[in-house]
Amino acid sequence: MSRLVVSLGGNALGKNPQEQKDLLKDIAVHIVELIKDGHEVVIAHGNGPQVGMINLAFSESSSTPAMPFPECGAMSQGYIGYHLQNSIGNELAKQNIDKSIAAIVTQVIVDEADKAFDCPTKPIGSFYSLDESIKLKEIMGYDMVEDSGRGYRRVVPSPMPIDVKEKEMIKSLLKDNHIVITVGGGGIPVVKKGHTLEGVAAVIDKDNASAKLAEIIDADILVILTAVDNVYINFGKENEEALHEVSITRLEELIKEKQFAEGSMLPKIKASINFAKNKKISVIASLDNAEAAFKLEAGTIIKG
Amino acid sequence: MSRLVVSLGGNALGKNPQEQKDLLKDIAVHIVELIKDGHEVVIAHGNGPQVGMINLAFSESSSTPAMPFPECGAMSQGYIGYHLQNSIGNELAKQNIDKSIAAIVTQVIVDEADKAFDCPTKPIGSFYSLDESIKLKEIMGYDMVEDSGRGYRRVVPSPMPIDVKEKEMIKSLLKDNHIVITVGGGGIPVVKKGHTLEGVAAVIDKDNASAKLAEIIDADILVILTAVDNVYINFGKENEEALHEVSITRLEELIKEKQFAEGSMLPKIKASINFAKNKKISVIASLDNAEAAFKLEAGTIIKG
Repeated sequence: MSRLVVSLGGNALGKNPQEQKDLLKDIAVHIVELIKDGHEVVIAHGNGPQVGMINLAFSESSSTPAMPFPECGAMSQGYIGYHLQNSIGNELAKQNIDKSIAAIVTQVIVDEADKAFDCPTKPIGSFYSLDESIKLKEIMGYDMVEDSGRGYRRVVPSPMPIDVKEKEMIKSLLKDNHIVITVGGGGIPVVKKGHTLEGVAAVIDKDNASAKLAEIIDADILVILTAVDNVYINFGKENEEALHEVSITRLEELIKEKQFAEGSMLPKIKASINFAKNKKISVIASLDNAEAAFKLEAGTIIKG
Repeated sequence: MSRLVVSLGGNALGKNPQEQKDLLKDIAVHIVELIKDGHEVVIAHGNGPQVGMINLAFSESSSTPAMPFPECGAMSQGYIGYHLQNSIGNELAKQNIDKSIAAIVTQVIVDEADKAFDCPTKPIGSFYSLDESIKLKEIMGYDMVEDSGRGYRRVVPSPMPIDVKEKEMIKSLLKDNHIVITVGGGGIPVVKKGHTLEGVAAVIDKDNASAKLAEIIDADILVILTAVDNVYINFGKENEEALHEVSITRLEELIKEKQFAEGSMLPKIKASINFAKNKKISVIASLDNAEAAFKLEAGTIIKG
């Protein structure tokens, strides 16, 4: 029996509630296989498209108050958490497995002095014209950047997670053999101000949050499920090559060679290294190969 | 030491995120007093204004998908849960109390055969004109009613809670001395279809959900915090009288005399009776008197 943290991409969950429900029916089958193999499972998930949708609804609606970004993130934890626990719970019931699963609303602590706060890089929400973008900067104080020729978007910092506020509750639930969904969307980012934790407009990378959580709960394996079957070198080129098992040292060389795309594979690899370096195992694999990846028979295995 | 379920009204939480944060700072002080007295605490809460706001944002926004009512409820659990655990967590830290608190996304099971499904009565969301209301009935299949001369509104059923899906996790957390926030907004209503739980457009009364939860976790006291200091007879009349301690038998007589307003005090009293009848105690009190009410020194005490 191992303790696994499974990190699901927000993009794997579709664009609307019906798509999300449909996609989760298949994902639930994979997760239940893992549980049948006797593993302890914690599920982390992204929320990019979902928190964008919630943020957009409040921006476009004329009768509702402005909704700050941490609160939109909290809503996305409720929304995705409900569908995850419902679909996995239904699959467990179908297979007569007596186990409980639920999402915990989760705050992840970041450092106010994190350099990311000086340099917001993570685009969120809608696209705006240059004029609108100047207004938003003036009125709301948002940082705005031009995004890939498609218009201007708000950017927020992406600081590193340093602790999970609700960790003791997660540990209690795992001890009693429950399945926990946590750090949704990388967690609701909060900073310490004296005794107080205060929500901040930021996005914690969900793979970094998953790696930090995996470390805190002393998990054995971190599984990052994404759109590709493996980590590749020379990706998209003639000499493209899938990595099956790779050491941290080798990965660090490949990072120096700029083999991995920033904002895409690179953060997954860095999170995987962070977790694996304490004699643990990280796996990066596709959702399609999830079951084999859980058995370390597919994907890219990173051993510390 | 007693185990208490505290049921907070959604109206006590304000109309926007800033109001909610501000109001919760005071509520947090009351809850922490309760914890300092050594009690085990479960917090339930309403979500009327908040789920209405979320539902409205998605209705008014043109670029986001339609958001079904159970999903809006799940979002409200994340939104209110985050503010509750943040404010109470901050107050605990301020007073150097080492305890964890978190909201659990919670599904509450209702019976598909509940008569409430034949007769939707609970108004939700925006007001519409007669024409719009006819269209919504045709296109979306919504039940619409005229509401107090202010226009037409969608109504959904308000079935009775029969079980709390995540109850074993709540019990595990209480066993380890954590503080749990659950059945937000009465819980996400789900019905059993074979092995499957399926979300339904309905609103479970949060006091009924709190009473059911209190029964399931074998709580000692159910405290319903509302806008008035006591339950009154002849309310608003010259001979108005506050009830301080009252038996179930007496309350049932008063219900027959139609002493209590439907949709307002009556459901709170019925929920209180349901819980108290198994030799337990229910209290209905105002938020202002919360600390005295927790000690059974204020409010209306109902003993079974």
